[in-house]
Amino acid sequence: MKRALSVTRDENFAQWYQAVVAEADLAETSPVRGCMIVKPWGYGVWELIQAALDKRIKETGHENCYFPLFIPMSFIAQEASHVEGFAKEMAVVTHHRLKSVDGKLVVDPDSKLEEPLIVRPTSETIIGDAFRRWVSSHRDLPVLINQWANVVRWEMRTRLFLRTSEFLWQEGHTAHADEADAREETRKMLEVYREIVEDVLAVPVIAGEKPENERFPGAVNTYSIEAMMQDGKALQAGTSHYLGTNFAHAQNIRFQGASGELEFCHTTSWGVSTRLVGGVIMTHGDDDGLRLPPAIAPKQIVVVPMLRDKPEDSEVLAYCEALKADLDDLVALKAPLRAHVDKKPVRAANKRWDWARRGAPIILEIGPRDASNGMVTMIRRDRLRDGDKIVSVGMPRADFLATAPALLAEIQKNLFEEAKARLDANIRADLTSFDAIADYFGKAAEDDEASAFKGWVRAPWARPTGAELEQVETRLKALKLTLRNIPLGQGAASGTCVFTGRPAVEEILIARAY
Amino acid sequence: MKRALSVTRDENFAQWYQAVVAEADLAETSPVRGCMIVKPWGYGVWELIQAALDKRIKETGHENCYFPLFIPMSFIAQEASHVEGFAKEMAVVTHHRLKSVDGKLVVDPDSKLEEPLIVRPTSETIIGDAFRRWVSSHRDLPVLINQWANVVRWEMRTRLFLRTSEFLWQEGHTAHADEADAREETRKMLEVYREIVEDVLAVPVIAGEKPENERFPGAVNTYSIEAMMQDGKALQAGTSHYLGTNFAHAQNIRFQGASGELEFCHTTSWGVSTRLVGGVIMTHGDDDGLRLPPAIAPKQIVVVPMLRDKPEDSEVLAYCEALKADLDDLVALKAPLRAHVDKKPVRAANKRWDWARRGAPIILEIGPRDASNGMVTMIRRDRLRDGDKIVSVGMPRADFLATAPALLAEIQKNLFEEAKARLDANIRADLTSFDAIADYFGKAAEDDEASAFKGWVRAPWARPTGAELEQVETRLKALKLTLRNIPLGQGAASGTCVFTGRPAVEEILIARAY
Repeated sequence: MKRALSVTRDENFAQWYQAVVAEADLAETSPVRGCMIVKPWGYGVWELIQAALDKRIKETGHENCYFPLFIPMSFIAQEASHVEGFAKEMAVVTHHRLKSVDGKLVVDPDSKLEEPLIVRPTSETIIGDAFRRWVSSHRDLPVLINQWANVVRWEMRTRLFLRTSEFLWQEGHTAHADEADAREETRKMLEVYREIVEDVLAVPVIAGEKPENERFPGAVNTYSIEAMMQDGKALQAGTSHYLGTNFAHAQNIRFQGASGELEFCHTTSWGVSTRLVGGVIMTHGDDDGLRLPPAIAPKQIVVVPMLRDKPEDSEVLAYCEALKADLDDLVALKAPLRAHVDKKPVRAANKRWDWARRGAPIILEIGPRDASNGMVTMIRRDRLRDGDKIVSVGMPRADFLATAPALLAEIQKNLFEEAKARLDANIRADLTSFDAIADYFGKAAEDDEASAFKGWVRAPWARPTGAELEQVETRLKALKLTLRNIPLGQGAASGTCVFTGRPAVEEILIARAY
Repeated sequence: MKRALSVTRDENFAQWYQAVVAEADLAETSPVRGCMIVKPWGYGVWELIQAALDKRIKETGHENCYFPLFIPMSFIAQEASHVEGFAKEMAVVTHHRLKSVDGKLVVDPDSKLEEPLIVRPTSETIIGDAFRRWVSSHRDLPVLINQWANVVRWEMRTRLFLRTSEFLWQEGHTAHADEADAREETRKMLEVYREIVEDVLAVPVIAGEKPENERFPGAVNTYSIEAMMQDGKALQAGTSHYLGTNFAHAQNIRFQGASGELEFCHTTSWGVSTRLVGGVIMTHGDDDGLRLPPAIAPKQIVVVPMLRDKPEDSEVLAYCEALKADLDDLVALKAPLRAHVDKKPVRAANKRWDWARRGAPIILEIGPRDASNGMVTMIRRDRLRDGDKIVSVGMPRADFLATAPALLAEIQKNLFEEAKARLDANIRADLTSFDAIADYFGKAAEDDEASAFKGWVRAPWARPTGAELEQVETRLKALKLTLRNIPLGQGAASGTCVFTGRPAVEEILIARAY
């Protein structure tokens, strides 16, 4: 059976992931350690994610701005736990000039900076410094801003999209007069993330609060959305933090309240990154490559003319162009439909596989007979095969045009539902002791990449803290497990904590994770 | 007479510029040397510039992607003249970790990088390295890509938007099989820049070729668009470079031609940056602040409710909201109209000046009488005053709604024509000797900021090169003048070169410049 990729998900999920990233032409490693090159198809997916999210960020009252790439080293030191969490691996700028010595380029020692600059790993400190200047009265609040930017966290083991030293993201930062507003903001943006990731990326998630040990450095509460990849691992797909007055205290962000007293602001921050593209791949990809939800497919319908270096080629091409023009006039998933005619000088049979690997939702193959009979031959990427056979359907051009938007909406829905069914079916809520959990995940953990599929466990716990929580973390770590989040909207807890044996106060998700 | 700014253009243009940037809330300096904070109103302008340009970049066949922020030092050294031009002032990353020593954060000496990394000042070298991998056959060409990114060039004297160490830009990079294609691309993108800057930013420009001494380091030909600021100085608003096979040779970017031989690619690059926002300010601003062309105004029509803490306030607010809703349904300048109701707890009289300073094209002031009579009171920012008097016009709501799109188009046109008339009236083509040019610009050059308005000179020249051109540069530099560009589409030249006395071959623009 012809397969588009050299390795299947079952054979080796990690290698399969790398194969999809390469074969779908999404990204590649660069000669710069840990940094990636996002290629046009991958960047196109990111642009569509950006557009959808940016719209919601603006609709919820935020404005975009841009802060410096560099952060003075002394700023990083301002918030104690922030230092702990971020001071470890960061790119440090120490000089500002090169010079030629004997025809060789070297760093000019005379250009040493008085204070080293850090390439931002996140921007709480530099933005907080601006908030301090911007806020003086309660009338200045709330401040609701966002930036789209690149950030750098020096990583030793990198994986394209999932973990790279430089990545692209958005980071929202807000300041509020009171705790309730700031908490509402934190949860509102978590909900925006859930909505975009589920509705646009077609990736079902579970929203919840992170346990204490998984909080953002400096946060009072951290919330996340967690998605289940096809190998069962969890991917943290977005986070939203209530920072309390921690950063406000560290950076002196104060305002005069209605009563005239100086008070500290309550701040929040929240972000999602290019990691989402990795999540899309591992949620929707199959053994033929990527399958893109139409809402984030740079080209939703690809028209492939079956050319044969014969006179009728020009008729076929004209037919394809006219078809694209008619498709361009349609609206699908609330946006102008994105159609494309692939005229590259490549054999048509290869194009089918190129676009299948790249995950174009619909491929139309047009031969001379289609052109003269007013027909199209359609392949749906989400239903590419029936066993070994590629499923293609012939239909009148007019019928296809009439149904194309509904078809794209259906593909979007199918991909979500398929992933949702997998998520729902693979959360074990019946394991009520640590031993049972350890049994379930088993020893396969030793060989991380090739281990059999394991889903998540939702277990009762007593919300241990401090040293007790550290012990929990250590026990889980031995099984390569982590605490993911405490799902929102839980009813009253029952049973006993799988870690402490005390009465449970809530349930928490446990999983292997990216 | 009430003025919105503390300083006028005539009093001190440089201070006026700073005042507009601050008072229109566009940007501010940051605690990081040379880096700016682009505030929401300024970033909103940039987003609209980006959107218009991105659309044209895609329509002309280019795809966006993203390359690493960091460039290995050895890459910078690959193209000799590129090194000359860029190796001087750049941010150099030498370490990748901080650590705490006695409670103090320091750079960890153990984290020194084997090879220093340069924060990209431009990306020819890192992108060329990818082109080398991507291109093997003539079938792979052309490669047409673009990226939106931040770049860093260490600057000693900075000015917000115009010259900052970090700035935002787009950089297009293309590779072609032959020279003619590459040259056509270079000129095509110059024309895209001209079109966007004139039609969207309403800034008239002169497109031309840069003389040899002003070329991009490593380019065979550099073209620019030059705009005239209100102090007469030129602002280079965009550049497009034909790089020949210089970078292809340096980086070994080759392809197998149709005949089977290995050939070097011809490459191009082209870019515009956040500097354009500075150009908009200095083209359209007046002594009351910024005036924004509607096509790049984040809010085109601002509705100001005249609230008085009285019961009728709610009626006024409802009227304003309904007005905005109706405006939101309109299309102006080929995009949905952008209306805004300013509900901030600030006195309405102050809001008028806030929005005048920020350059909102139309301000509607709505009092209780307007609300009950179905009227609006309209202020046009481009025609704010009649002498000392603010011009406001009352008209029925329905009439305003019916004419709003046409009015915005008219404001857009007016701003362009006003600037075009200034440009056309201030290019002297009658100075046919270097002495006459020196006389015209005069000694005021010594006090750069406060000098009287001087336009540009368009003078015949013989296209000197090498040492002779260096002499020209030196003579001009003494008068703080530079060669701007050789305008495209010239007829046959007449007269003698103002520098060499030889027969002229063409005309060149001479001006003071940013």
